[in-house]
Amino acid sequence: MKLDKDLNILIVGLGLIGGSYAMGLHKKGYKVSAIDVNENSIQYALENNIIDKGSTDVDESLISSADLVVFALYPHVFLDWVKSNQHLFKSDAVITDVTGVKSCIVYKIQNILRSDLEFIAAHPMAGKEVYGVENADDAIFKEANYIVVPTDTNTFNAIEMCKAIGETLEFARISSLPPKAHDEMIGFVSQLTHCIAICLMTCSKSEHLVDYTGDSFRDLTRIARINENMWSELFLLNKDALLSQMKTFITEFNAFYEILENEDVEKMKEKMIQSTARRALFDK
Amino acid sequence: MKLDKDLNILIVGLGLIGGSYAMGLHKKGYKVSAIDVNENSIQYALENNIIDKGSTDVDESLISSADLVVFALYPHVFLDWVKSNQHLFKSDAVITDVTGVKSCIVYKIQNILRSDLEFIAAHPMAGKEVYGVENADDAIFKEANYIVVPTDTNTFNAIEMCKAIGETLEFARISSLPPKAHDEMIGFVSQLTHCIAICLMTCSKSEHLVDYTGDSFRDLTRIARINENMWSELFLLNKDALLSQMKTFITEFNAFYEILENEDVEKMKEKMIQSTARRALFDK
Repeated sequence: MKLDKDLNILIVGLGLIGGSYAMGLHKKGYKVSAIDVNENSIQYALENNIIDKGSTDVDESLISSADLVVFALYPHVFLDWVKSNQHLFKSDAVITDVTGVKSCIVYKIQNILRSDLEFIAAHPMAGKEVYGVENADDAIFKEANYIVVPTDTNTFNAIEMCKAIGETLEFARISSLPPKAHDEMIGFVSQLTHCIAICLMTCSKSEHLVDYTGDSFRDLTRIARINENMWSELFLLNKDALLSQMKTFITEFNAFYEILENEDVEKMKEKMIQSTARRALFDK
Repeated sequence: MKLDKDLNILIVGLGLIGGSYAMGLHKKGYKVSAIDVNENSIQYALENNIIDKGSTDVDESLISSADLVVFALYPHVFLDWVKSNQHLFKSDAVITDVTGVKSCIVYKIQNILRSDLEFIAAHPMAGKEVYGVENADDAIFKEANYIVVPTDTNTFNAIEMCKAIGETLEFARISSLPPKAHDEMIGFVSQLTHCIAICLMTCSKSEHLVDYTGDSFRDLTRIARINENMWSELFLLNKDALLSQMKTFITEFNAFYEILENEDVEKMKEKMIQSTARRALFDK
């Protein structure tokens, strides 16, 4: 099966990311339906031509006609949904997701899934500080990274199809990582940075910060506006990898503290030269 | 003395910030001259109509005709310059600066300065990751904060004149803080965030970060491209305040580590709700 416009695509969970997937795929001429428990979300998506069909129920006809199903739910809801409703999937359907952590969910889904279905995991590294399909915007994918996260049991065809979704949505970079490496990387570049942003906002009681902040502080704390239900779940599901990355960062930060305490100017400049060189690679 | 267009304004140090001051003031019709050791910088500023006059020497006629002198030099160069050349200043001239740390420099300058001159310190909280007058751009002030940093010896008139510079350059917010409070604040919002950005870049050896990073990591490390000479000097000059802010952050970060280690979801959500509420104030 290839990603072409005859396929029926079903999005389960029509929030910011599910909605942006629907919008991007629908704009490109794909047939997109959606299931979401929230009546307003479905209504909004239908009225704004983001989806062709939608339902707030576990709609048998939508599910059984879908060739490709994209789950954009909280991890534990995703697992329960598949357990309860997988008997409705069309034979040979391909299932993918947008979950931000992988090891804890990918193998569970693959283990319980009917043998005539295939689950191929993906992580679109895009987001906003606002929620819901009303804020959906497929432009958020244009500068973003898309990571396909296959296991040993995934087929070449499913992996290619999963990459094709990233290409269709016009992600800037598409790559592939096994679940463990993905979770370590995400623990570092995404979860650790969110921990830092949160702590920067919670460690000061000053009410006048806004009068004195430059771009630096604004940039480092933009992601401190955070959905506490989703992110606490993501942190716990990736606990070991995140703790390990936090430890690495604390060690480095304490070393920098000592360098300053000892007024070791040469060592300090070395660190700055190194950080400058590494960061410059991002701006090429 | 009020900031009006009859005044001769002299900028000493025509780098990014000095150049952006010159550009902004000159555009508004002020008479602006500059002194910089770099011939190319003066040449560039003259050719691009950023200044009226310029010199690479300690030019007596430029200095003795200046009513307002803005120093945009490294802190220790600033102090040496004033020591060596203050006999050339016009009587009643007002002197200001753009230095990012204050306690270590303001009192020293005020103590050695001729009694017929007045030094009023200011901190324009703006910058870029590039240097030199060739990158000067007064637009960097439009969204930025400007802090006047008076001591007990400053006069009302000089403080008002210093504020007027910030208004003329169209800073978004203009406020006032005594030197110690300024340095604590800067240790937190600016220097601590730079330390964090540096450590985020130096604690990982991965060469493939760019393939996996989302906006979060990019945002938190933008300022890891850093001028090691200027920033190591600024960090050392504000050592105690910065160490204290680093300690506060480490304590909070370690507490968050424990919360995650203990899987204390409620406490974690509390922190996230608090960080979200505090950060939301910035986006009003």
